[in-house]
Amino acid sequence: MRGGIDLGGTKIQAAVVDGDGRVAGDARHPTPTSGGPADVAAAMVAAMAEAARAAGVEPAQLEGVGVGSPGAVDAEAGSVTSARNLPGWEGTFPLAGTLQDAFGVPVRLDNDVNVATDAEFQLGAGKPYRSLLGVFWGTGVGGGVVLDGRPWVGRGAAGELGHMVVDQDGERCPCGRIGCMEAYAGRGAMEARARRREGETKLFEIMRERDRPRLTSGVWKRALKAGDPVATELVDEAVKAIGTAVGSAVNLLDVEAVIIGGGLGLKLGEPYVERIRDAMLPHVFADDRPPAVHLAELGDLGGAIGASLLVTR
Amino acid sequence: MRGGIDLGGTKIQAAVVDGDGRVAGDARHPTPTSGGPADVAAAMVAAMAEAARAAGVEPAQLEGVGVGSPGAVDAEAGSVTSARNLPGWEGTFPLAGTLQDAFGVPVRLDNDVNVATDAEFQLGAGKPYRSLLGVFWGTGVGGGVVLDGRPWVGRGAAGELGHMVVDQDGERCPCGRIGCMEAYAGRGAMEARARRREGETKLFEIMRERDRPRLTSGVWKRALKAGDPVATELVDEAVKAIGTAVGSAVNLLDVEAVIIGGGLGLKLGEPYVERIRDAMLPHVFADDRPPAVHLAELGDLGGAIGASLLVTR
Repeated sequence: MRGGIDLGGTKIQAAVVDGDGRVAGDARHPTPTSGGPADVAAAMVAAMAEAARAAGVEPAQLEGVGVGSPGAVDAEAGSVTSARNLPGWEGTFPLAGTLQDAFGVPVRLDNDVNVATDAEFQLGAGKPYRSLLGVFWGTGVGGGVVLDGRPWVGRGAAGELGHMVVDQDGERCPCGRIGCMEAYAGRGAMEARARRREGETKLFEIMRERDRPRLTSGVWKRALKAGDPVATELVDEAVKAIGTAVGSAVNLLDVEAVIIGGGLGLKLGEPYVERIRDAMLPHVFADDRPPAVHLAELGDLGGAIGASLLVTR
Repeated sequence: MRGGIDLGGTKIQAAVVDGDGRVAGDARHPTPTSGGPADVAAAMVAAMAEAARAAGVEPAQLEGVGVGSPGAVDAEAGSVTSARNLPGWEGTFPLAGTLQDAFGVPVRLDNDVNVATDAEFQLGAGKPYRSLLGVFWGTGVGGGVVLDGRPWVGRGAAGELGHMVVDQDGERCPCGRIGCMEAYAGRGAMEARARRREGETKLFEIMRERDRPRLTSGVWKRALKAGDPVATELVDEAVKAIGTAVGSAVNLLDVEAVIIGGGLGLKLGEPYVERIRDAMLPHVFADDRPPAVHLAELGDLGGAIGASLLVTR
């Protein structure tokens, strides 16, 4: 049994996974919104303990625990730097060591998008393929690249699919650059765009009704269902931008498959995967053999399952 | 001694290369503009014979001959399909077998952009690096990808850098798609754009004076030197588009280096490599560690030298 933790800006997802990749127990805790890295680590320990209880084991009995983290992850050093979606985490924090002390078993870190991509590659929708692009559509849009059966991380910063350019004279991205795909498709950017048209949309009303602090994937889905014109338009633009960036990536890499996951991707599901595929196709140069496009299979637990795979490596 | 032939839409460049990658003899013949694949093959044989003579050897004494070809290359079958810049070459032609019969030595084929990238990687500006992107700025804009020391070709169609999207609502590319980088930066597309403003530019006057059938790289360079406003504007837009697409590629792959070659790239040289770098930087996400950007070192003979490297593989 191995533990896996997916550390997100909103939630911490923990899972205990057996040797066949099956989830024996899991738990979800909200990510602390104040304090600092030590408080986040404490919440991760609590989530893992709960997942272990659900699986009928002690954390100390696990072979190890893997963690998928946002920010700049130094896997060798076991540290995470400037995880800006997490409270007080501008600097460098020794996350692996801290968790190792708490669990009493080895802890391995990697980038959250890489572990989620690897989970889909090894156990999910990517299993039939040797090369793929993972697309994680959430607050931002992360990308994972697998080539010839191995993750490609470049010098550590590869996979920034969300910052591929779709309009070089277009909107400013939350990252500060111009025309990134994420400027149109990241849920964060989409919320900022919706905010500028607050009078024309029910998005924020739905948010308040459902007692959400922001426009969550569920809020977007409800607004789409209700035919909200601003939500429809902004999601259309997001789909188009993702299709364009994925098309560009496919032209450069000619991968066999594209896997769509992430909070918003999973929430909107198959019909939107189909729409992203339709938005991609007109840009694919080798159009006699476009890649397969699939919804991520492991769902919300993909990140935690992928993190658990770090333990055996 | 190995032979290498770079088959282009305008010229056939042949070289005899020694074991250290040094050129012992070379020759350049114009590519036939009428006839069919057999005529092109005959011109390739003549060019190789001349290069061999210059090197003081017979073609039959070579270890083999490598060929970099446009179109869809089937390296296994030794055939080239739909090389649309070449006369009457819509179908499939057994190029390797035809040349092998003429030379009496083994002939190997690969894609022209791949061999040019490999030449720069093994012997040129890419030597210090393990991962790079080759950018060949000519009639179209080709791309070659080397990752972890090996060419990445995907399922055979990778490296279509020129068809990465820079403006998803932009110009129509000669390939028929919308907003490809090549729609702004390919010399073919640039000529079509200049043609629409023929009254405002001296480009076509320079072309006629120099007795050229089209706007060659030399014509563009002269027009830039003369301060021609249309040439300046179109080249500015080309540089911007290349910078954007390269930035997107770097965000996806985080390569160590970018090598700029191709007819127009080589003709315009270092100052424009610098400008492409400046156009790329604002889009690079990991901006604390952008890739090195270099001019291709092997110049016009890079394609033929790279083709000769096919022989040893």
